[in-house]
Amino acid sequence: MVDSRAAPRQHGSLAAPEQIHERFRRTRRATLDLAAPLSAEDCQVQSFPSASPVKWHLAHTSWFFETFVLERSVPGYRAFHPAFRTLFNSYYVSVGPAWSRMQRGVLTRPALDDIRAYRAHVDAAMLALLERDGGSTESAWLVELGLTHEEQHQELLVTDVKHLLSRNPLFPVYRASIVPEDAAASRLGWLGFDAGLAEIGHAGDAFAFDNETPRHRVYLAGFELASRPATNGEWLAFVEDRGYERAELWLSDGFDAVRAQTWCAPLHWVRVDGAWSEFTLYGLRALDLAAPVAHVSFYESDAFARWSGARLPTEFEWERAARDLPVSGNFAAPDHLQPCAAANSSGVLEQMFGDVWEWTASAYTPYPGFRPWSGDVGEYNGKFMSNQMVLRGGSCATPPSHVRATYRNFFHPDARWQFSGVRLARDSR
Amino acid sequence: MVDSRAAPRQHGSLAAPEQIHERFRRTRRATLDLAAPLSAEDCQVQSFPSASPVKWHLAHTSWFFETFVLERSVPGYRAFHPAFRTLFNSYYVSVGPAWSRMQRGVLTRPALDDIRAYRAHVDAAMLALLERDGGSTESAWLVELGLTHEEQHQELLVTDVKHLLSRNPLFPVYRASIVPEDAAASRLGWLGFDAGLAEIGHAGDAFAFDNETPRHRVYLAGFELASRPATNGEWLAFVEDRGYERAELWLSDGFDAVRAQTWCAPLHWVRVDGAWSEFTLYGLRALDLAAPVAHVSFYESDAFARWSGARLPTEFEWERAARDLPVSGNFAAPDHLQPCAAANSSGVLEQMFGDVWEWTASAYTPYPGFRPWSGDVGEYNGKFMSNQMVLRGGSCATPPSHVRATYRNFFHPDARWQFSGVRLARDSR
Amino acid sequence: MVDSRAAPRQHGSLAAPEQIHERFRRTRRATLDLAAPLSAEDCQVQSFPSASPVKWHLAHTSWFFETFVLERSVPGYRAFHPAFRTLFNSYYVSVGPAWSRMQRGVLTRPALDDIRAYRAHVDAAMLALLERDGGSTESAWLVELGLTHEEQHQELLVTDVKHLLSRNPLFPVYRASIVPEDAAASRLGWLGFDAGLAEIGHAGDAFAFDNETPRHRVYLAGFELASRPATNGEWLAFVEDRGYERAELWLSDGFDAVRAQTWCAPLHWVRVDGAWSEFTLYGLRALDLAAPVAHVSFYESDAFARWSGARLPTEFEWERAARDLPVSGNFAAPDHLQPCAAANSSGVLEQMFGDVWEWTASAYTPYPGFRPWSGDVGEYNGKFMSNQMVLRGGSCATPPSHVRATYRNFFHPDARWQFSGVRLARDSR
Amino acid sequence: MVDSRAAPRQHGSLAAPEQIHERFRRTRRATLDLAAPLSAEDCQVQSFPSASPVKWHLAHTSWFFETFVLERSVPGYRAFHPAFRTLFNSYYVSVGPAWSRMQRGVLTRPALDDIRAYRAHVDAAMLALLERDGGSTESAWLVELGLTHEEQHQELLVTDVKHLLSRNPLFPVYRASIVPEDAAASRLGWLGFDAGLAEIGHAGDAFAFDNETPRHRVYLAGFELASRPATNGEWLAFVEDRGYERAELWLSDGFDAVRAQTWCAPLHWVRVDGAWSEFTLYGLRALDLAAPVAHVSFYESDAFARWSGARLPTEFEWERAARDLPVSGNFAAPDHLQPCAAANSSGVLEQMFGDVWEWTASAYTPYPGFRPWSGDVGEYNGKFMSNQMVLRGGSCATPPSHVRATYRNFFHPDARWQFSGVRLARDSR
Repeated sequence: MVDSRAAPRQHGSLAAPEQIHERFRRTRRATLDLAAPLSAEDCQVQSFPSASPVKWHLAHTSWFFETFVLERSVPGYRAFHPAFRTLFNSYYVSVGPAWSRMQRGVLTRPALDDIRAYRAHVDAAMLALLERDGGSTESAWLVELGLTHEEQHQELLVTDVKHLLSRNPLFPVYRASIVPEDAAASRLGWLGFDAGLAEIGHAGDAFAFDNETPRHRVYLAGFELASRPATNGEWLAFVEDRGYERAELWLSDGFDAVRAQTWCAPLHWVRVDGAWSEFTLYGLRALDLAAPVAHVSFYESDAFARWSGARLPTEFEWERAARDLPVSGNFAAPDHLQPCAAANSSGVLEQMFGDVWEWTASAYTPYPGFRPWSGDVGEYNGKFMSNQMVLRGGSCATPPSHVRATYRNFFHPDARWQFSGVRLARDSR
Repeated sequence: MVDSRAAPRQHGSLAAPEQIHERFRRTRRATLDLAAPLSAEDCQVQSFPSASPVKWHLAHTSWFFETFVLERSVPGYRAFHPAFRTLFNSYYVSVGPAWSRMQRGVLTRPALDDIRAYRAHVDAAMLALLERDGGSTESAWLVELGLTHEEQHQELLVTDVKHLLSRNPLFPVYRASIVPEDAAASRLGWLGFDAGLAEIGHAGDAFAFDNETPRHRVYLAGFELASRPATNGEWLAFVEDRGYERAELWLSDGFDAVRAQTWCAPLHWVRVDGAWSEFTLYGLRALDLAAPVAHVSFYESDAFARWSGARLPTEFEWERAARDLPVSGNFAAPDHLQPCAAANSSGVLEQMFGDVWEWTASAYTPYPGFRPWSGDVGEYNGKFMSNQMVLRGGSCATPPSHVRATYRNFFHPDARWQFSGVRLARDSR
Repeated sequence: MVDSRAAPRQHGSLAAPEQIHERFRRTRRATLDLAAPLSAEDCQVQSFPSASPVKWHLAHTSWFFETFVLERSVPGYRAFHPAFRTLFNSYYVSVGPAWSRMQRGVLTRPALDDIRAYRAHVDAAMLALLERDGGSTESAWLVELGLTHEEQHQELLVTDVKHLLSRNPLFPVYRASIVPEDAAASRLGWLGFDAGLAEIGHAGDAFAFDNETPRHRVYLAGFELASRPATNGEWLAFVEDRGYERAELWLSDGFDAVRAQTWCAPLHWVRVDGAWSEFTLYGLRALDLAAPVAHVSFYESDAFARWSGARLPTEFEWERAARDLPVSGNFAAPDHLQPCAAANSSGVLEQMFGDVWEWTASAYTPYPGFRPWSGDVGEYNGKFMSNQMVLRGGSCATPPSHVRATYRNFFHPDARWQFSGVRLARDSR
Repeated sequence: MVDSRAAPRQHGSLAAPEQIHERFRRTRRATLDLAAPLSAEDCQVQSFPSASPVKWHLAHTSWFFETFVLERSVPGYRAFHPAFRTLFNSYYVSVGPAWSRMQRGVLTRPALDDIRAYRAHVDAAMLALLERDGGSTESAWLVELGLTHEEQHQELLVTDVKHLLSRNPLFPVYRASIVPEDAAASRLGWLGFDAGLAEIGHAGDAFAFDNETPRHRVYLAGFELASRPATNGEWLAFVEDRGYERAELWLSDGFDAVRAQTWCAPLHWVRVDGAWSEFTLYGLRALDLAAPVAHVSFYESDAFARWSGARLPTEFEWERAARDLPVSGNFAAPDHLQPCAAANSSGVLEQMFGDVWEWTASAYTPYPGFRPWSGDVGEYNGKFMSNQMVLRGGSCATPPSHVRATYRNFFHPDARWQFSGVRLARDSR
């Protein structure tokens, strides 16, 4: 049992002490900044079962440090509140019981202010620990994991809030903000890649998730990748060509979802007076035809690709194409949590990182030789490797420097509340 | 259409102008007082589909005055917010669309403070109207109805909050308060009533609901009524005699409910370290054996009565017995929203009013000759006359002077979140 | 325990021995006759949860005699098959476990022929018992109950088969048959009844169900009753007046059912090429406008009555009106299981018995002083006294001489698969 | 549209005319032979939503020939019954509407004898066509597909019947039969395979499904494969080690399924008097510890593998190992539809074909370059490529000569009613 709680050994080289100190402060503050425009009421509600209240995100990310770092590395550490161990456990069976996921929204107490105090308590203890140990301890890797975990919850916080506000017929504005002028969409080009063995997955000392490892070889036939994600304008053509009504374009489960959930357009598209608008965190606005389509499910992406005479890329094709690109793009900034049109360049891959997560044709399964992290955190990724599809590249709600070319995101094929879009692929001619 | 919105004509005599003015102020303030110990977060959440958020109660009761009084009686009245007409409509089809009952908890905007402003706006307009018209207008009856309506929502607010807080494993306290010492339960006696025709239902000029009319004759065989409601102690004996496991004691639908909802004790009874406690608005405390049992469903009450060798009274028997009693008892007071033991008198009916609503054996159906009120408010009671059972007498959460001997409350037979209990009856020997 | 299985004592006088002998043979044969036009496959299927397979009806009615008569009155009686005690127990908890109601259709074994053999085995033992005891034993009352029970299942068999065949797009014919020419509907008249005390419920020695007792007094205000049930033609006017779309005509639960179950006409009405047909046991045919409407729920009947400016009668009003009429009408005959138009008489109550069961405004609750039969058969009626509404008078699928003026049938308010219709009532002017 | 109904072009070389003639007769007769021990009642029932009635299997396989061959290749062909086109369409949207899958069991008409007549009608027309055209027509490929399709339904018929009979507490016997004596289980060995590129998928002229194509390269790391499937005895050790209770062994969705479906052992294991029996088509018998475990889901197989310190093989590893083995094993024979113990050889792969389908770690997704067949039959496989897992190798219910090393079967990860088992794999040391 002691062993099962030990920090994993495969953690590679980590940030220098002063860096981790600063990164900890910055990351924790960023979460609060995202919640700043919201009232205690906004932070309370779970608007559908897959979402969590903002308050719960704020607490759970603190629970993560308390449970996996402080309780193990700080002798005599005193928990902020004994009940929080259960209330803010998401799904770690090895840690003990967890409060029902469906009932997160019912916890009006602790109050938002109490959760802020909880964060401050954990932050103080963490900073003291980092000060004392200088990051050289065995827990340094867990701190890194905790910060990456916090970044993931920052993105979920944004998409959960967007869903919550979108359910409100008043279409509340998360934050008044300037967004760039609409640009024209760049012309869609195709980039070709030769057949051959590709090295897939993470290698080296930098932090990565267990699900990105081990690095291994995958043979790829020749393929082509679209130069940019599909746009709202292209999706509108699909809608107007009755794409949501033509069973022959869909996977069988996908068309069942269309009918059961009465889909007729992406989530957050709203028909107002005969024209399509989209609900954004900055309010309802005219649909930006040049911007990448977002909030579509895997099923819709797959049908759209078929309608387009193309297909989705596999996650290996995507990674092969992305591996030499700089990880830069439209990532999360509080005043621009919205995808924007590609620059009008040509002949290069645009927007591989940022703007929208890109659905792939790959089911989320373990890499050959995959081993989950040892200890409790082994539950982080591995146990979810069924019934989900891989997305790649990050979105406009992903914190900067969070993703990398080997990063695997995953959601169920009918999930639509993330900033999820589609980049087309096709076999080499 | 004009006619369908007219105020009903059968309203009888109403309070004098100065009285209605003061009663309006007092009633509206009482609602805010009940919400005062709660945070905006507490006021936001709908903890199960039959409950409503406190915020919604605060808004809907204002909507009632705005929709049924101000919009009709104040020329040029300007609604506080045009969307509220839909958002806070409960179920009045004739008024227009209503926001989904199941989705009341998702409306984090308008904020609680906005709802307070809404209340203030409506109150100012109402007081101006009452000032001007002196209550002599045709809307006076609707004002009376609105205040009675507000009182009903005060009770629902209390029971909804109790349910919400009870779902929280921290067992939050609504209000720190002193409650009386436990008393011993009075001895159960039986009061006899002779057979004969009884006059049932409301008559006269005072305000009453349409469902209490018309007054009519019902023939009653001789019966006996228990001198007080059943106590927690008596219910505990039922539990310990395996009452929840013995199908032969139950209605078929009732035993299905026991199994489907895994009932083994009244709602809000909590097993702590091998002993029964009860969750109250003042925290978790040892079960008060002498107090009336509360938070039991019709099904449980019916099974308990069968186990006791008795039965539930019909609503007519109850009304026959209550009609000459003073309407006094343990009604709602902010610091004592909890039933308490009967005084130790004997040979008289105790606690017919207050403490706990008493389930009757009567299905909620129209009285002979029943006519719903004309106009929109005709939807108030009549359309719910199926699948519910009648309760009588009011509870510790009912505002004082709200109920009367002819008052018919009604809930589905599996509802348990009201302060609902049971008084036994039996045929004359 | 012995006592709890004793035959009830309140059974009154029963048929003479030779009569019961003959009645037993005739009743048992009638059940087989109803099944005769059906294949083993037809007899196998449970087409919705409230229905039972024909095979199950054939078996359960035999189980009733085996369990309640043979096992108790025939020393050394050998059960046909030990597993049948559980497989064909409907809901008698006191008898032991019962096979899941929802899973009755999965029992392809025992085969239909085995069930016929089971019937023959039980019949032989029963006839030997009746021969020996001459009906003078204490079990005679249980035999009478068993035959009445069998008649009830004959009716259910017919309506269950009608439902099953109606689900088949081939609209199979149960039996080729001649039905009378369409007649014109008689003019609707109203018959008045004065206010006063009525004696309600069964009295005397003849067999009756426990739920019809005890006879007791009910005070009735003056009322009027329609001279005949509402017709398909009248119902068509309701449909064409958008009756199914106008919420104001409906109980709240009723309109929820309309939407959830997408009702737009009575069950078994079928729209063919722009005209209404009805599915009958004799095939699909043009809607008979003069015949009583059938296969409507309580909710629909209630809304129709409101639309008609009338109401449903209470079960007491119905019984008061029916008590002096002869129990004659269009009852079940294998070649005419279909309601037909009233004769064109006037000024009298027509079709109070037979053709269609008539929904009443009365919830199915116990009469004052009600005691279920003692012993196992006490579960027959009493435990279902919640959430159902009373129907009166029998239908074209009810065996002749089965019903009487005091007979209470009961179904849930949304049930439509019985031959259930509506007779209007109104208060005296 | 004409084009979309054309026979696919990629069909390769097919059997000689006389062979196809004989194969047609034999295959069609084999289906009837499987149904021979069953009554019309047995053939009627759909025991759960994923199953179909035997009668429906008999009809649908005939519908396939009628729709895809006869209607297109026989000028003036007269359909047996016009409604069958809809009633027995499984899911081919391009063919037209299909009767609801959930309602297949409600169709008591057409009778089983009518379906036999339908089969005879189709057989006569098919044999006349084969006689005339000698198999040289463009429809020859569709005939081959139809026969393969029929073989798939033979297996489903067997597993659906097994499920149906297993629901019956009488545990009916499908066929009295002799089964071999229990053997001891062979010792589990491991066979190693080197890393390298493997050619995966079907190539050549012989019939194969579109989902087995195109042949393509997959890079495999070194791996080892168990010499035989896991046995009931090994699974029993997993059960007794509380395998079904330990969340850490399971995928998250898998453990949810354990709880929701209350799994505690493989389907068809039955606890009798404290010992495990298994329900077989030959009745209930003591669990054969040496035989391969069957009727386990992917989730269970995955947890069992983790408990065993191993993993499931990918479908590519499986195919790599199987490609040079003869396709022989324990395939379907009417008197032995039950897995049996491996022979006691060592150092070779046993039972790769037959006995039990082997779950793989591979999600069912398209091969690189996959193209569904053109025309209506393109709906056969491709549209199901989500949310399912691949199984390989065939079972004791698979017709002989039906499978091959490249054959991909697929089911949802919680499906248990097939003869599905598990062969362990592990990485090379």
